[in-house]
Amino acid sequence: MSKRPGLQQARSFDLQQFLAVSTESVNRALDTFLPSEKTKPATIHKAMRYSLFAGGKRMRPALCLAAAEACGGLEDDAMPLACAVECIHTYSLVHDDLPAMDDDDFRRGKPTNHKVFGEGIAVLAGDALLTQAFEIAAQSRGWSRYSHRTVILELARASGSLQLIAGQVADLEGEGKKTSAQQLRYIHERKTSALLCCSVRLGGMSANCTPAQLQALTDFGYNVGLAFQVIDDILDVTQTSEKLGKTAGKDTKAQKATYPSIVGLDRSRRIAEELTGKAFDALKPFRGKAAALQGLAEFLLKREH
Amino acid sequence: MSKRPGLQQARSFDLQQFLAVSTESVNRALDTFLPSEKTKPATIHKAMRYSLFAGGKRMRPALCLAAAEACGGLEDDAMPLACAVECIHTYSLVHDDLPAMDDDDFRRGKPTNHKVFGEGIAVLAGDALLTQAFEIAAQSRGWSRYSHRTVILELARASGSLQLIAGQVADLEGEGKKTSAQQLRYIHERKTSALLCCSVRLGGMSANCTPAQLQALTDFGYNVGLAFQVIDDILDVTQTSEKLGKTAGKDTKAQKATYPSIVGLDRSRRIAEELTGKAFDALKPFRGKAAALQGLAEFLLKREH
Repeated sequence: MSKRPGLQQARSFDLQQFLAVSTESVNRALDTFLPSEKTKPATIHKAMRYSLFAGGKRMRPALCLAAAEACGGLEDDAMPLACAVECIHTYSLVHDDLPAMDDDDFRRGKPTNHKVFGEGIAVLAGDALLTQAFEIAAQSRGWSRYSHRTVILELARASGSLQLIAGQVADLEGEGKKTSAQQLRYIHERKTSALLCCSVRLGGMSANCTPAQLQALTDFGYNVGLAFQVIDDILDVTQTSEKLGKTAGKDTKAQKATYPSIVGLDRSRRIAEELTGKAFDALKPFRGKAAALQGLAEFLLKREH
Repeated sequence: MSKRPGLQQARSFDLQQFLAVSTESVNRALDTFLPSEKTKPATIHKAMRYSLFAGGKRMRPALCLAAAEACGGLEDDAMPLACAVECIHTYSLVHDDLPAMDDDDFRRGKPTNHKVFGEGIAVLAGDALLTQAFEIAAQSRGWSRYSHRTVILELARASGSLQLIAGQVADLEGEGKKTSAQQLRYIHERKTSALLCCSVRLGGMSANCTPAQLQALTDFGYNVGLAFQVIDDILDVTQTSEKLGKTAGKDTKAQKATYPSIVGLDRSRRIAEELTGKAFDALKPFRGKAAALQGLAEFLLKREH
């Protein structure tokens, strides 16, 4: 991308460098987009920033920027959309951690938002981050092939009651109930894949991608999103809380359906690999320009927390 | 407006008829914009619709449509924005009623969302209504003088951490504390006036209003919004729960600052009248075309619940 000349031409792609650079750019942009901690009322801006800068992996923004790169776009054009998606992701975590939902005390190794600021402010901080996402997305410069209208609709639909929120509802309602593999996929598609896929698509749109490129990015994002959630389920069973930075074994305790609980650990690992394989296949049309996207998908498959 | 020929030319403006017609149109449009109760996951759509169709007065949509009328616009162009504002208003009520916030059991004479669907779903229903608002606003047709970008920014800013949410935070933090008249105005400007003003401005934008018209609508909306909240405070002291459809005397009980508690009941009534007077003055440039806006302002001043 414009600010990292030669990166995509590098023979052996350096994912760690890509992630370090993109995380720093994203953090800087988020810091600029959000009101400062001193802006009145200070509590809400402190609470918003607390969760937004709690050490998230910035995987969705990285995917958005990598998709823009694959389509020959500029980082500056993709950045507002990358930040908007991260605000939506963060809001969903803040609300998901509430006592009325998953009731989690730790997230990314730190006390959850409501543990620090109280439930009322945590609800409002989530609301504010969700609203902020649309403000940031609307601030983007605009593109020749995709209108602000298209981009806002994309973001709203991926986050709305038929996608992200549908996943949360199904997740909440599924606790303690017998769940089929098919129902679990329904949950994962919405809870994780929808916003991940949206991140990739928005990156493409910011680069004025062709309809064929957008389709390839959609296939990639859908499969990476599913793989991501299957791996999350596996890690919940196999890792310690310390390593995860959040309470491990929570899904089992909450009697939540997971891939390991339904199809077993080995088969879950194979499913994650298959999904990642499909994601790689989707990248073929980009011929080497999608090194960052491929690197990210590999990273997500092999991660240990 | 296009669908009600001759209405604005009527010698004596019939507000009840205007409200009946606009409420019906708004309800029909909201019903079309929202996923049906049967759409999976049914719970979230039932919960969204429960609060959205709980007998709200539809004052914000009415103000939006009336502002469009004052600028010679068409109802069809204003309707998505009127519905978007109502979704945001409803979401803010659903979250405001939560135990972690105002902890209210009744709203508009019916059990609050979390009382019927549980806290988790109520949080998600609020989130979904907020997201839906942006989806609906983005679906609007578009206008020559105002872009989708402008309209989304207007909506996001009025609802964000510097306006609507700032008001909720200040309200939450002010409970039990000594509040000055100045601080109370800060809260009211954000908690009520911002979204009301935004409704009127969006109505004007949907009619491609001139900058001068937009300024007049802003002055009108700001003052009506403040008057609306002062009257709300007065009614909380003077009316029964039955008449209000929500728990009366709640502000006093929660030790919340209100106009009557700070400046007394008589002075509060005079302030409401002064604000309404300023709102009327702002309508002068529209010369008779703003009968609906004026009627609505009068109605808000004289209402008893």
